[in-house]
Amino acid sequence: MTSLQPIRSSERVQSVRTIVPVILCGGSGSRLWPVSRKDFAKQHVPMLGGASPFQRTLARLDPAIFARPIVVSAAPARFLVADQAKEAGVEIDIALEPQGRDTLAAVTLAACLAARRDPDAIVMVMPSDHLIPDAAAFGRSASAAARLAQQGHIVVLGIPPTGPSTAYGYIAPGAPLDDAGGHAVDRFVEKPDAGRAARLIDEGCLWNAGMFCFRASAGLAEIEEHASRTLAAVQRAIEEATDDLGAMKLGKSFETVTKISFDHAVMERTQRAAVVAAEFGWSDIGDWKAVWQESPRDAKGVAAEGRVHAKDVTNSYLRSDGRLLCVLGVDGLAVVDTADAILVAPIERAQEVKGLVTELEAQKLPEATTPARVHRPWGWYQTMDLGERFRVKRIVVLPGKKLSLQKHHHRAEHWVCVRGTAEVVRDDETIILRENESIYLPLGCMHRLQNPGRIPVEIVEVQTGAYLEEDDIVRVEDDFGRL
Amino acid sequence: MTSLQPIRSSERVQSVRTIVPVILCGGSGSRLWPVSRKDFAKQHVPMLGGASPFQRTLARLDPAIFARPIVVSAAPARFLVADQAKEAGVEIDIALEPQGRDTLAAVTLAACLAARRDPDAIVMVMPSDHLIPDAAAFGRSASAAARLAQQGHIVVLGIPPTGPSTAYGYIAPGAPLDDAGGHAVDRFVEKPDAGRAARLIDEGCLWNAGMFCFRASAGLAEIEEHASRTLAAVQRAIEEATDDLGAMKLGKSFETVTKISFDHAVMERTQRAAVVAAEFGWSDIGDWKAVWQESPRDAKGVAAEGRVHAKDVTNSYLRSDGRLLCVLGVDGLAVVDTADAILVAPIERAQEVKGLVTELEAQKLPEATTPARVHRPWGWYQTMDLGERFRVKRIVVLPGKKLSLQKHHHRAEHWVCVRGTAEVVRDDETIILRENESIYLPLGCMHRLQNPGRIPVEIVEVQTGAYLEEDDIVRVEDDFGRL
Repeated sequence: MTSLQPIRSSERVQSVRTIVPVILCGGSGSRLWPVSRKDFAKQHVPMLGGASPFQRTLARLDPAIFARPIVVSAAPARFLVADQAKEAGVEIDIALEPQGRDTLAAVTLAACLAARRDPDAIVMVMPSDHLIPDAAAFGRSASAAARLAQQGHIVVLGIPPTGPSTAYGYIAPGAPLDDAGGHAVDRFVEKPDAGRAARLIDEGCLWNAGMFCFRASAGLAEIEEHASRTLAAVQRAIEEATDDLGAMKLGKSFETVTKISFDHAVMERTQRAAVVAAEFGWSDIGDWKAVWQESPRDAKGVAAEGRVHAKDVTNSYLRSDGRLLCVLGVDGLAVVDTADAILVAPIERAQEVKGLVTELEAQKLPEATTPARVHRPWGWYQTMDLGERFRVKRIVVLPGKKLSLQKHHHRAEHWVCVRGTAEVVRDDETIILRENESIYLPLGCMHRLQNPGRIPVEIVEVQTGAYLEEDDIVRVEDDFGRL
Repeated sequence: MTSLQPIRSSERVQSVRTIVPVILCGGSGSRLWPVSRKDFAKQHVPMLGGASPFQRTLARLDPAIFARPIVVSAAPARFLVADQAKEAGVEIDIALEPQGRDTLAAVTLAACLAARRDPDAIVMVMPSDHLIPDAAAFGRSASAAARLAQQGHIVVLGIPPTGPSTAYGYIAPGAPLDDAGGHAVDRFVEKPDAGRAARLIDEGCLWNAGMFCFRASAGLAEIEEHASRTLAAVQRAIEEATDDLGAMKLGKSFETVTKISFDHAVMERTQRAAVVAAEFGWSDIGDWKAVWQESPRDAKGVAAEGRVHAKDVTNSYLRSDGRLLCVLGVDGLAVVDTADAILVAPIERAQEVKGLVTELEAQKLPEATTPARVHRPWGWYQTMDLGERFRVKRIVVLPGKKLSLQKHHHRAEHWVCVRGTAEVVRDDETIILRENESIYLPLGCMHRLQNPGRIPVEIVEVQTGAYLEEDDIVRVEDDFGRL
């Protein structure tokens, strides 16, 4: 990862400039609970038998059309973003928002950063958590939007509706523009009820999927006109930005930015709005119904992932992360099993899962927001057993990474290395821990776990003590700024 | 536990003899899968917020009315039977069937064993997996049955039906007998369809719950008349019986006994059949619907056990063994979550779970028959994590118990003691393993784990190796006859 760089001069000579993709990575996707949680959100969850939506978004960007992506991420997810991009083999720039501030802030940030590469850069803003299987069709639509953007339009991609959804805003196209395929925007319509949605579709309206394309300078001019305070605050936050382990972390002025969507603040007010109808198939995989629709289904409409035994079941989504899930005699049900939580709900009520998760959060249940597998900058851990005075974790340390130098006041730890070779610091010693070797870390000792090798290290950790929570940790040194 | 003994002479002076209870403990209860499994069957599963049905059956036996129970168990469950009786504080005699041979064999065995105590002993045969909350009412009904039995009748307890169930056989009472409350049996009716069941109830029929009462000598005479070969085979199996760690294990002649129910073989043919209507509330907790009916329910008909969050749910049974189970917007559903398997089915189709389990067995899925927590004569173990070349188990050893002296060809083991004090034999050493201490058992070493103390020992075991299944074990010495 390098920090944000100007676009390379070779990219400037093309007739349509390469497009600077800006990927917004801030959502939490709580409608896909329990698989998606605030601390491991939908865009990062491997799904539909493959990569995460974020990784699919990166993979979709044909280098002949798109420049190096800028990813706008919430600060806590930054290591996930970096690791998943690395895994996908795509180099990215990362801009970290200290707080989520809705899409006006994120798009303004994107426009500013792209303008630093080139004031006339064509920017395309896209969510990180949508499914667009046909990358070539996506590229064609993006190029069509870019041609309009080059002329100064603020372009939104409109998705041809597949049904009278009440989950999206609608775009009413107006007069055709001179360019092939583009239209002025007649008006934006808020999420309608089902009856209104059907009428909007009859009128030729399109879904608003939050994908925008504009010339950086033109976008900034519109933001200046309609949201000048936000622009100023974002510019200040960029000036205050610091390099944070290779990512750009925005400064504290970002806090002062108003929470509002780019649609409300700019798109609905600009005179330069244009719409291009998308040529590609699209899903926001926004709830379990959408996942079910995008999944392979058998003749009875059952989509099954993992160890599932279904008998006399129809039109259902059944997913297990490991346990044997047996379902008998139901219709239209979503059953989603994870290591620490299970959801059972009718597919047609999938939108209500978000409200359910809000209830769980209000009850301060950890399963509401934190997954069983906790991702850390150095890898991940998961509690596998929890007794009265002990806890067993599986810990995976990625190659080259190390945990903080730390100690605990209330627990001792036994580590058994079950894969790879670890280097362990224990007070004044440095010990190489090979596969099938163990080490004891008495209560209060200073210790550090490191993976000096080329393959992941896996450790089984047995903690013993009267208090075994994560907050019993004193960090003395850390590679990831967590002191 | 002592072996089977004659009834004490002090018991003979009562006007109604004390009753010898014979508890049949052979069922598998697969309709309550995944909580009940062949290797840890319904009668042994703690449920309804308390003890197991077997333990409740023991607790129901008022010592003023009932003598020391004889428990007829399948051989593999014998340690469970003994441990649960000990936990319930009830001394029992155990007779082990080498193979399940239906109820004629078990009742014949019971009659023979009771007759060895006293030929005129009053025997009462009862299943181990039924729920009868009112022990006093049960005692009154048993005493009424015993009075008829003393006169030579073969008495069946009839349960007043609570609805037109198709799950039970029915008993049509005939002429009243001289004694208060008893009737001759007019006829037995096989499990009817729902329409017929309603008519049977109108006619005053009762459910047959498999509870029988007879004088040992009278019962044996009827069995002799209607099933003489079974009687002879069971008598031979008793002669061949061996003492097996305090239980009576029947000999190989038991194999030759025909599989048939006591109802078909004797009750439907004897001239001495009588029926007493039960005064007590009863459930066979035969499927999840019955468990739901017997459970406390909220105003919307939802019975919840464990960590359950239900929103807009009605008439459902929701059970979690630890995970957070979230259910939204369903009616009439049973959701049962265990460590390694989940069931989702409509409550009204609860009877079909048995067929589902048969399908799982046919696919040789271990979850069909073996629970995650595997009970052993010395305690239990459970796999908590399983990786590519490692397995983590929690092992609990009961006070005074020891595992076999053993070795493995394909795995090394790390043991961390997290509770109690263990004694470990490793080749020529004997090591005391205290809380928070660990020990390494290299591949091929001879080892043994023992609990010399007064509280359970808990061990976290980390196995490493290329093959980590239970059959990689060479036992050299064992307290439980498993060489």
